[in-house]
Amino acid sequence: MKELIEPSEARQRIAAHLPNIPTIDCPVDKCAGRALRQNIVTDRPFPPFDRSMMDGYALRASDAKHGLTLKLTGMATAGAPRISNGEGPNDCVEIMTGAILPEMADCVVPYENTERTDDGQIRLTDEAPIHPGDFIHRKGSDFDAGAALLQTGQKIGSREVAAAATCGYAKLKVSKIPRIAIACSGDELVAVDQKPEPHQIRRSNDSCIETGLARIHLNAEKKVHLPDEPEIVYSKLKSLIEQNDFVILSGGISMGKKDFIPETLDELGLTCHFHGIAQKPGKPMGYWTTNHCAVFALPGNPLSTLTCLHHYVIPALEKALGLDSADSHQSVLLNKSESVRKDTTVFLPVAVGSNNTASPCQPQNSGDLVRILQSNGYIMVPPGEAEATQGKAYTFYPWH
Amino acid sequence: MKELIEPSEARQRIAAHLPNIPTIDCPVDKCAGRALRQNIVTDRPFPPFDRSMMDGYALRASDAKHGLTLKLTGMATAGAPRISNGEGPNDCVEIMTGAILPEMADCVVPYENTERTDDGQIRLTDEAPIHPGDFIHRKGSDFDAGAALLQTGQKIGSREVAAAATCGYAKLKVSKIPRIAIACSGDELVAVDQKPEPHQIRRSNDSCIETGLARIHLNAEKKVHLPDEPEIVYSKLKSLIEQNDFVILSGGISMGKKDFIPETLDELGLTCHFHGIAQKPGKPMGYWTTNHCAVFALPGNPLSTLTCLHHYVIPALEKALGLDSADSHQSVLLNKSESVRKDTTVFLPVAVGSNNTASPCQPQNSGDLVRILQSNGYIMVPPGEAEATQGKAYTFYPWH
Repeated sequence: MKELIEPSEARQRIAAHLPNIPTIDCPVDKCAGRALRQNIVTDRPFPPFDRSMMDGYALRASDAKHGLTLKLTGMATAGAPRISNGEGPNDCVEIMTGAILPEMADCVVPYENTERTDDGQIRLTDEAPIHPGDFIHRKGSDFDAGAALLQTGQKIGSREVAAAATCGYAKLKVSKIPRIAIACSGDELVAVDQKPEPHQIRRSNDSCIETGLARIHLNAEKKVHLPDEPEIVYSKLKSLIEQNDFVILSGGISMGKKDFIPETLDELGLTCHFHGIAQKPGKPMGYWTTNHCAVFALPGNPLSTLTCLHHYVIPALEKALGLDSADSHQSVLLNKSESVRKDTTVFLPVAVGSNNTASPCQPQNSGDLVRILQSNGYIMVPPGEAEATQGKAYTFYPWH
Repeated sequence: MKELIEPSEARQRIAAHLPNIPTIDCPVDKCAGRALRQNIVTDRPFPPFDRSMMDGYALRASDAKHGLTLKLTGMATAGAPRISNGEGPNDCVEIMTGAILPEMADCVVPYENTERTDDGQIRLTDEAPIHPGDFIHRKGSDFDAGAALLQTGQKIGSREVAAAATCGYAKLKVSKIPRIAIACSGDELVAVDQKPEPHQIRRSNDSCIETGLARIHLNAEKKVHLPDEPEIVYSKLKSLIEQNDFVILSGGISMGKKDFIPETLDELGLTCHFHGIAQKPGKPMGYWTTNHCAVFALPGNPLSTLTCLHHYVIPALEKALGLDSADSHQSVLLNKSESVRKDTTVFLPVAVGSNNTASPCQPQNSGDLVRILQSNGYIMVPPGEAEATQGKAYTFYPWH
């Protein structure tokens, strides 16, 4: 490891050295969770016409009074061209929600404020006064043509898609789906479907990372196991870096005799932006790049991998793909104090309950799965504080 | 519409009449966001051996004292079978994180508390006392074999996958991916890539729904447009209901002359569990089922579709697919009072900022896209309250 840097500095160095992911056109209904890389502008006023907001009858407010009987002259349905009311003072048009207000009419009276007479005429039964514009959604009252609805950098969810489709965007500009590879290193690892010898454990960090990425709509094209053999690691890493936009490594980056990932990345000619963050867990994390590929090297303990994935890798991927601003974060109040190391930033797993309260789930060690499973995210306790304090507010970062 | 029911009653009736979705085996790394439909149990103690938590030297604590010089007798690496320390009082083994503690040793001293002598021996340089068990993650200290790690009904995220993979679950039992169709009705609707006439609008609710489903890892197999022609609606609905587990309809279910979806569903022999909820927006929503298909009928206004999708459809789909409990919800404090209708439940869009504060984004009407886009979720204001009140806490439901 090199000199330790602070977590905020690590995030900045990553953000300043991300690969450039090109923009593509994607069908509007296949963009869920991706970042918009264009502005969305209305192509016509909204609503595009004076639109009925109710099912009922269109008429002239100046004619209307309680008890008046009206003659039906037509029917205005949604999706039909504009018709005209009759010219007589007692003429009205039956109108559906979403239909264009007929010419010569200026308001809508809902069905429930009327009754049908035996001879098929309409009587106004409500005593409340009727005004021009009642139950009319005025043309252009929401926005004019040319209004900016969505800005580049926004995350695309259900309501953004509704807005873009309404404005005629059959495709949206988003980032190309990046090629991402995951590699776990260590001779102690065996495949999930194998029965491990006593000194072995099953590979789990790669599936953990792949699942975290899937939760933000990204997928890993390749998962690789790196044995503790420098030549094999060299050649496998070389090809992963050549073929991918991002490589996420887990394990092999600490101070152990078999931790030769950092040296291998240096040998391969990558630039190291940092190796070592003043944090617990995840201290040995590093970040290397070529001019087209970013390599996140995460420590191999399950909690270190999980924490670094959430605090560094996922925000970096989202930024590289065009996301300008993250989701707003919930603020939580700890319901119990918890001692932590004072000399470094501590990421403390917590379980959030109702009313924005959070219970600390301090793991006994970086491999303590049970406490991690009890948590649903983590808080950050800054250096210089010897405890996470009961009643104090912390920003909550959810696990994906 | 039939008699209006309360939103909680609507949710209960839906939950009581969901189709039965069979369980399948899915590769553990392809389960993101789905509900687990089995318990996950450990197959061996964790850790499975006394495991070194640091890179350093394994020795006997009873021998160790500040300044002692030790003789290296071997190297214990992660993934290698257990070796033995030498038997001499000054023997030690170099050990890597994750390696098995050698026989005859009972603690680990990290590299940073040692130095190498010129003749390759190891000197202890730290004055702090050394105890048996130091930097050892004891076999079975996290859990024994047979311990329950995850329960059926939990949502599968990155940490659940890490736990399941560690325990040897190469596949997990989850629900079959359901077949879901979306259909929008109304002659006023044209395709997104068409230029609408003044009386027409583009289809957007189907893409909105599809995107909301994609955000929870579900996909709609089919999107259909229903014209205002009863025979066509009858035959299209018949085939959609036969071929899908869920059909989500938007539009055509209110009191308008062309709103014949409810009658058609009745004619097709479906059971209506309700039609009409005492809420704004989304009052005309209804729910029909056969013995294998559930039909959600949502009102066609954009905000009604969006709100009913989030408050009823998505929770129902998640429950049908095996999810026992939803994510814990953020509690927000309104930063401004907002008048609402007193006689009904109101779903009020809000924009959540920092410190769990929320600003009301009351739409002018159910088609007001701009205010919807400013919000990132909604709160529920119960009937009998004439305002959403500044400083009061509300449960926040995020838009997907």
